[in-house]
Amino acid sequence: MTIKLSSTESVQNFFKEVSGFNNDQGSQRMKKLVNRILIDTIKIIEDMEVTTEEFWKAVDYLNRMGARGEAGLLVAGLGLEHYLDLLLDAQDEQAGLTGGTPRTIEGPLYVAGAPLSEGETRMDDGTDAGTVMFLQGQVKDVDGKPIAGAIVDLWHANTKGTYSYFDTTQSDYNLRRRIVTDSEGRYRARSIVPSGYGCPPEGTTQEVLNLLGRHGNRPAHIHFFISAPGYRHLTTQINLSGDEYLWDDFAYATRDGLVGDIRFIEDAVAAKARGLDGERFAEIDFDFQLQSAAAPAQEQIRDRVRAEA
Amino acid sequence: MTIKLSSTESVQNFFKEVSGFNNDQGSQRMKKLVNRILIDTIKIIEDMEVTTEEFWKAVDYLNRMGARGEAGLLVAGLGLEHYLDLLLDAQDEQAGLTGGTPRTIEGPLYVAGAPLSEGETRMDDGTDAGTVMFLQGQVKDVDGKPIAGAIVDLWHANTKGTYSYFDTTQSDYNLRRRIVTDSEGRYRARSIVPSGYGCPPEGTTQEVLNLLGRHGNRPAHIHFFISAPGYRHLTTQINLSGDEYLWDDFAYATRDGLVGDIRFIEDAVAAKARGLDGERFAEIDFDFQLQSAAAPAQEQIRDRVRAEA
Repeated sequence: MTIKLSSTESVQNFFKEVSGFNNDQGSQRMKKLVNRILIDTIKIIEDMEVTTEEFWKAVDYLNRMGARGEAGLLVAGLGLEHYLDLLLDAQDEQAGLTGGTPRTIEGPLYVAGAPLSEGETRMDDGTDAGTVMFLQGQVKDVDGKPIAGAIVDLWHANTKGTYSYFDTTQSDYNLRRRIVTDSEGRYRARSIVPSGYGCPPEGTTQEVLNLLGRHGNRPAHIHFFISAPGYRHLTTQINLSGDEYLWDDFAYATRDGLVGDIRFIEDAVAAKARGLDGERFAEIDFDFQLQSAAAPAQEQIRDRVRAEA
Repeated sequence: MTIKLSSTESVQNFFKEVSGFNNDQGSQRMKKLVNRILIDTIKIIEDMEVTTEEFWKAVDYLNRMGARGEAGLLVAGLGLEHYLDLLLDAQDEQAGLTGGTPRTIEGPLYVAGAPLSEGETRMDDGTDAGTVMFLQGQVKDVDGKPIAGAIVDLWHANTKGTYSYFDTTQSDYNLRRRIVTDSEGRYRARSIVPSGYGCPPEGTTQEVLNLLGRHGNRPAHIHFFISAPGYRHLTTQINLSGDEYLWDDFAYATRDGLVGDIRFIEDAVAAKARGLDGERFAEIDFDFQLQSAAAPAQEQIRDRVRAEA
């Protein structure tokens, strides 16, 4: 029994009224967006014969999702955040903006204001007995010229796959740092090898993924914002080689050009030279290339509501 | 600069993967619904040229909305709950199910398990110095024959427009009762005249309504679930005559046949005969007519996640 009310004049007029078309207050942009969303919503209800029970389950889901703050995780898991990257890529291509390190998703776990240091830093607070990781590289322009004074703002998970602030057992800004590149455009960080990340098993994102027959795992990865005066802001990640989820990321963040080759070294002499006890540590070298900014606004990160420290 | 990726094979395939089409686990129904929602979402993003900033504002909105539990209020304010009634009406018409008191929206403020009494009740706890209201009527079938033993489950706001449980300053089940109709199908309730309801001014529903140039007010009204063995469950409301928002309800619940004619009486003798001090009180008579149930499932309320006491 398929009923189509969405195309009737009375229902169209009803949702124009709902969307505020009959008054001259508010935001014209918002009215148009809300009207489009509502009309598409009722077309989905009709075409898919959504029952009232399904509708109210969806409403309840939105309440439970928001109560857990998982909307950002869901749009990553449903590929919408990756799709926005594809759209920005296509816009860049149309505008002739090519080259440089690829962008990829930010994810919902950035926190602004991490400690800032010159050239190098240590990121972990020493409480997590993970494998020590030495991460270094250069920030360059698309011609390979080093960019001094760039800010490398990076964050990653601990050995349990959790992030400081969201995992309140970690110290403030643990595994979150900002490094200003030196005169050769270099940054160096000592940290611990991160583990992959899994969606909270009891959460609303995993609830949807289960219904889609999907897992909620990400490969081990390190997030970066890279910025410098005169260059386009870059939001990206490196995903670590050898992880079973490297090309099976629930958030679709892994991209060609963004795989970080991690080398595990077992050498007591080399470890001692690095100031470490034991013999095992890891190294990653990763360079970034930034496009020139055509306008100052391109130097800035895109606006988004983010978690606060 | 309009880019259309949604129709490309690669993006279509990507969202099939996202929706779990490439595995045989999970729910086939959920996969189809999620895929349709995602494809329509990216078409909206492309057609309306939604910016990343707008996208992330929407994501943040969903988190804030859910944190306040306002999804049910938003779908009422955006007319989707009323639209579901229009759809059910059309389905009934197609099935030849006509007659009886019209349905209208439930709203998000029902709480199950209100005190049950035979024939009559008092609904208010005596702490709200509102005008006393005597509400009575009959539950009948579509031919006008009284239905004894029907359950009239009713709830309404206090003089501030707030509901017990959601307004935690009210006593348990204040202004919420269930009444079993007597041998003549009659119910009688003493209560206080409710005030209209306004969306919380600091809430996320009012935030959207402001952007649409709309108010968030409802006329004074009384909610009802009416049920009886052999009859279709009825979800409805009566909206009170004389209210400035009677036909300008932000939730679109007022319908022909659902206006409750409230009579304010100033008569000290009549008041005393009713057991009241003073001289002012109000009366409402409202009868309900139930359709016969074609199947036992129709006797039951439609499934929805509801607040719990």
